[in-house]
Amino acid sequence: MKKELSQLREAMKRRGLDAYLIPTADYHESEYVNEHFQFRKYISGFTGSAGTLVVTADEAGLWTDGRYFLQAEQQLSGSGITLYRLGVSGTEAIHEFLTRTIPDGGALGVDGRTIPYQMGRHLAATLEKKNISFSYEEDLAESVWTDRPPLCPKAIWSLPLSSAGIPRLEKLAQVRAELQKSGANAYLITGLDDIAWLMNLRGNDISCNPVFFSYCLLTPDKTKLFLHLDALSKELHEELVQDGICLCSYEEIYDALRSLPVNCHLFLDPSRVSYRLKQTVPKEIRQILGTNPTTLLKSKKNAAEISCLKEANRKDGAAMVKFLCWLKEAVAKDSITEITASSRLEAFRREQEGFLDLSFDTIAAYGSHAAVIHYTPTPETDTALKPEGLFLLDSGAHYIDGTTDITRTVALGPVTKEMKTCYTAVLKGMLALADAHFPSGCRGEHLDILARRPLWELGLDYRHGTGHGIGFLLNVHEGPNRFAWNTNPQKPSGILEPGMVTSDEPGFYEDGAFGIRIENDLLCIDGPDTAYGHFLAFEPLTLCPIDKEAIDISQMTEYEIELLNQYHALVWRELSGRLSEKEKAWLQQATSPIHAL
Amino acid sequence: MKKELSQLREAMKRRGLDAYLIPTADYHESEYVNEHFQFRKYISGFTGSAGTLVVTADEAGLWTDGRYFLQAEQQLSGSGITLYRLGVSGTEAIHEFLTRTIPDGGALGVDGRTIPYQMGRHLAATLEKKNISFSYEEDLAESVWTDRPPLCPKAIWSLPLSSAGIPRLEKLAQVRAELQKSGANAYLITGLDDIAWLMNLRGNDISCNPVFFSYCLLTPDKTKLFLHLDALSKELHEELVQDGICLCSYEEIYDALRSLPVNCHLFLDPSRVSYRLKQTVPKEIRQILGTNPTTLLKSKKNAAEISCLKEANRKDGAAMVKFLCWLKEAVAKDSITEITASSRLEAFRREQEGFLDLSFDTIAAYGSHAAVIHYTPTPETDTALKPEGLFLLDSGAHYIDGTTDITRTVALGPVTKEMKTCYTAVLKGMLALADAHFPSGCRGEHLDILARRPLWELGLDYRHGTGHGIGFLLNVHEGPNRFAWNTNPQKPSGILEPGMVTSDEPGFYEDGAFGIRIENDLLCIDGPDTAYGHFLAFEPLTLCPIDKEAIDISQMTEYEIELLNQYHALVWRELSGRLSEKEKAWLQQATSPIHAL
Repeated sequence: MKKELSQLREAMKRRGLDAYLIPTADYHESEYVNEHFQFRKYISGFTGSAGTLVVTADEAGLWTDGRYFLQAEQQLSGSGITLYRLGVSGTEAIHEFLTRTIPDGGALGVDGRTIPYQMGRHLAATLEKKNISFSYEEDLAESVWTDRPPLCPKAIWSLPLSSAGIPRLEKLAQVRAELQKSGANAYLITGLDDIAWLMNLRGNDISCNPVFFSYCLLTPDKTKLFLHLDALSKELHEELVQDGICLCSYEEIYDALRSLPVNCHLFLDPSRVSYRLKQTVPKEIRQILGTNPTTLLKSKKNAAEISCLKEANRKDGAAMVKFLCWLKEAVAKDSITEITASSRLEAFRREQEGFLDLSFDTIAAYGSHAAVIHYTPTPETDTALKPEGLFLLDSGAHYIDGTTDITRTVALGPVTKEMKTCYTAVLKGMLALADAHFPSGCRGEHLDILARRPLWELGLDYRHGTGHGIGFLLNVHEGPNRFAWNTNPQKPSGILEPGMVTSDEPGFYEDGAFGIRIENDLLCIDGPDTAYGHFLAFEPLTLCPIDKEAIDISQMTEYEIELLNQYHALVWRELSGRLSEKEKAWLQQATSPIHAL
Repeated sequence: MKKELSQLREAMKRRGLDAYLIPTADYHESEYVNEHFQFRKYISGFTGSAGTLVVTADEAGLWTDGRYFLQAEQQLSGSGITLYRLGVSGTEAIHEFLTRTIPDGGALGVDGRTIPYQMGRHLAATLEKKNISFSYEEDLAESVWTDRPPLCPKAIWSLPLSSAGIPRLEKLAQVRAELQKSGANAYLITGLDDIAWLMNLRGNDISCNPVFFSYCLLTPDKTKLFLHLDALSKELHEELVQDGICLCSYEEIYDALRSLPVNCHLFLDPSRVSYRLKQTVPKEIRQILGTNPTTLLKSKKNAAEISCLKEANRKDGAAMVKFLCWLKEAVAKDSITEITASSRLEAFRREQEGFLDLSFDTIAAYGSHAAVIHYTPTPETDTALKPEGLFLLDSGAHYIDGTTDITRTVALGPVTKEMKTCYTAVLKGMLALADAHFPSGCRGEHLDILARRPLWELGLDYRHGTGHGIGFLLNVHEGPNRFAWNTNPQKPSGILEPGMVTSDEPGFYEDGAFGIRIENDLLCIDGPDTAYGHFLAFEPLTLCPIDKEAIDISQMTEYEIELLNQYHALVWRELSGRLSEKEKAWLQQATSPIHAL
């Protein structure tokens, strides 16, 4: 058994806890988690990005999803921790495990800053029935995790107005106007991307996410920003103070909530606030629960952001073209692996002016690896590319002009008929969704079938959503917009609005054989106003050829061929001026029109 | 001012009521309302199918929707009743009217049997804030409406097992199994179609709806049916008693609810139960609220029902073909109007063996009338058909084999280019939805865009759902399946399942000019089981040619042309044996393949 597990059990015993729950989360419900918060990884040895560990005196269980079953099995082997497979029928749920293992009158401990309010409420209610106390201020990491990585806040920087488009004071006024509509006179913001957007600030506290650890508390006449003050330069400190922002240290948020005036009507987003933070709000204060107004405001990119995003995508497209031109030639003669290809692509991106960081870990998956939807190559799995079959690359970057996310699947040489059939079906779906015309009011659920239809006609499908919202120089995944169909009808995606950017990334995965995904980021734009509504459409932001060598033209209608040719003409127009002569020649051929057979 | 209104006010005064509310409803939340329950029409003079009347000592208001604004204006003129236009911004809502006009401590009266539970609960809660009492057992119709049409229950009849497919005792067992899952040991059924389906009985108490006024109360070992006992023949009475059904009079339901044992867990569908019935249930009884299990069971047609429905549609298709063959020739030489055409179509249907009734009032709309979506010709509006333009017919029937619903829009002579463009877009949408292939789990919301897409591409749309569920020899509108996109996401339509029948009826309406709708009823069928899910598809039940004279073939892809030709080949195969030589020749031409230009 792992010694870390024994140490945790000793700490639990000292605190009188029968069970301790460790999610994979920071204090902000962030999608990606800084090393400082990876206590679950430290105790269990399981390195996957998602999982919840529960430890009792006699048992320990780790709950994770299908992406990680194999990896978790290997990493948990001999650890004394049982793997619980989420989504597999018959798997005991966490709350069932807790009520089975904790005795009547016992206690469950958790660091309430790391679990969302809804989950905490559900746990507390479940445990109450068995008279189990829910001790949510137990940070056992502090005592057990002796070599815990420090938080090390990175320097925060101010986004120039030329990129942000709207000054922070104007954004604050927009948010206050929204709050007034909901009857609130105070607003606690805990989402790191919400705060970064609102303040026109960026940081680097989470890998691939240009955000900084902070809270924000708004009242009609005061803006309090809680953050690591040493992450601010003197100039930035002054800039914020001049804008009337009251700067407080990160930890002060708890005291600030405790001392809210009793006539306060506090707005909170229950999906983004931690259980402990929510419990800290004094009981006499009226709480107004809703979706952060910043979520919608942030998703609708303004004119400056859109103009920047187009430039970011030209840069990213140029890097992709340089890479593909190199790859197609090199694969036949050089020894390239998933990881070296990945690094080469990153190098081309770094050459682009204003490159800041990757927007997520590159998925570079060759052959059967591409059938693993969330595959990222590691030294153990890294594979040599051969001049045959399909290579899937899902990657993106942050530039000073914005965030990109692109997937291309390329033929490294001959591909099978089956691969072509599936590739063409995926392409037809991607093109159909990008070509949608729809009245205002539609959600992603209503359009999703356009991307899946060519696959569904063949009895095929992909087990992921079709697309996600993308932040402006922020998180590569954001709401409320997304494309998906089999979502909980009680939690619909947001209504599509002009300025929203959503990825369009259908795929197909044949287990053990190959994987295909083609992804363009789509900007939602205004279409005509007619007697039947205000119509909307999409414009592709992503600029990069789609590999014609994997297409079976006989499957495409003339209209679909025309859509592809138009897209390729756009790619040529926008990128040809940014390439060497050799690359330009390659692009010309890669974007030349195809014709019906 | 109308004398009926004064009489109502006197009755209100006698009962000490400050306001009286009259919806348009029977005691079962039925979609169509028997004359006996048309008290709102009697008091207000407004004859539309939807509307709520509220009367106080000094004011009176009628709330209705856009379909009826013009008609209500005319019919309410001089009545002393103000028209409140639902859906028009700034219109005072009923609850606002009530809280404004009823004094503190006043009283609102209503016949609580005629309002759904949810509405009653909302009203009671709103009024409570102003200390207004909600007197929901006030049936003022009894004293005011002296010549009220009696209910006159019609003879109830037993559906043969060859049509019903499943004996009533087996259906009862199915429903009891569902109830057990929800923890209920009693079940109150109030929906007339639910009861008719469950009992394999039919009636004729509501025009076009083969149902009978009744309630049903199930416990694990007892089935109580509350109905007008004189509507049962001696034979049917015996048949039911032999099946162990306990027959009670219609009015006894209230006493039966009052005397439920206290350990009872009563299942109720809050969307189908009246406020008064719900309030009658003793407070100590635990209530389990949910959707009637009969709703889903009823919607999935069994093999016998499907086989019958196919025959019903062959009969209906033969009648339609006979009619269209006659119409196309007669319109140029005879004097035909919307109403005479309608009657002629009904006559062709009546000639079919096993015809029982129309399934709804025929919409026969020529020229600009067809742009009024819910138009039904009256002697005042009836128009002569000319050998030009488009004629829209939406009609259906009940046969002993099942219920049909079909819309065809036909060119009576030359049509404009615009009409052809729109007709072809509607047709493309209808064909695309009928051709859908989709995995189990999809709802109508996910497929709806297939029907609208060709119109949306032109900036056009139709302001109604794309389709509704259809009962088996029951109501022409039933849930939970439907095709629509802009529904309340909190109230999604049901998941599509094999055996469900849903109409596929996109349209287009140019105000003041013309209207188009093309409707086939689709049976949901099993498709292949693949590694990516269990797939489903549709099979058309409706059999009738689609007028090729209104099609612009240049707008259609080869695939769409193939879909239409396949459908027409099916129509020819199924119907040609049921026609005269002349009709057969007409059908052959009407279903001959078209070819790409």
